[in-house]
Amino acid sequence: MKQQIAVITLGITDIERSKDFYINGFGWHALHEDADTVMYQMNGFVLSTWLQSELEDDISLGDLPRGGALTLAHNVDSPNDVQTYMKRLAEHGGKILRPADSPSHGGVRGYISDPDNHIWEVIYNPVWKVDNQGQVTFAPST
Amino acid sequence: MKQQIAVITLGITDIERSKDFYINGFGWHALHEDADTVMYQMNGFVLSTWLQSELEDDISLGDLPRGGALTLAHNVDSPNDVQTYMKRLAEHGGKILRPADSPSHGGVRGYISDPDNHIWEVIYNPVWKVDNQGQVTFAPST
Repeated sequence: MKQQIAVITLGITDIERSKDFYINGFGWHALHEDADTVMYQMNGFVLSTWLQSELEDDISLGDLPRGGALTLAHNVDSPNDVQTYMKRLAEHGGKILRPADSPSHGGVRGYISDPDNHIWEVIYNPVWKVDNQGQVTFAPST
Repeated sequence: MKQQIAVITLGITDIERSKDFYINGFGWHALHEDADTVMYQMNGFVLSTWLQSELEDDISLGDLPRGGALTLAHNVDSPNDVQTYMKRLAEHGGKILRPADSPSHGGVRGYISDPDNHIWEVIYNPVWKVDNQGQVTFAPST
């Protein structure tokens, strides 16, 4: 099977609140939007935000928690951008979980949750390559 | 900011159990592995599986739930592949949440959780384009 993920779907509870974070906070634009979902074209896949009740109906499970042990990392271009972008995201409904600092393995990163508690890492990583299309290539330190 | 996610990190509790699902179940190969993490090169980003205790230390939060309201969708090439691959994943530690069937908007999909309860959708979607590199382009029905 291909090493492929087509869609990441986040269960959300308030479309407008979520849009404020992703559109005004991240500065992204939506490519599809209807009454219960907003989708964003990412680097080779789609990020979908979908009303949690409908996502749960589709899975056939209910009362799923949000804010679990799963993080989405967004790379930025400079160390200072981490704090700048986290501040902006916090102004649009994000909650800072860990302010930007430098882990022992290098770079700068912080953690912030979206208005539905999904956890994002904002990170400056000087090692991994990100091309102009946002494609990320694995490049572990040797 | 770029519409970009560099890494999806899944908190896991047993490296070998998780590897059985991703390497033997999905048939993927790891590009990096150490005592607490296994990483996979995906379509333009990296999927990382990391011991949850270390992920929580990095975020500065504890006792995060797994199996929350967030799904990762893997596209397959034919309707019959959905059931075939779900069966294989279930043989490697996956738990079927919803057997393959056809939603009203078309295609075939099922849901299965990995051994740490992270929820995957296995889906045949005849509308969205997936190129040979696994890159997915948003193509909503008109």
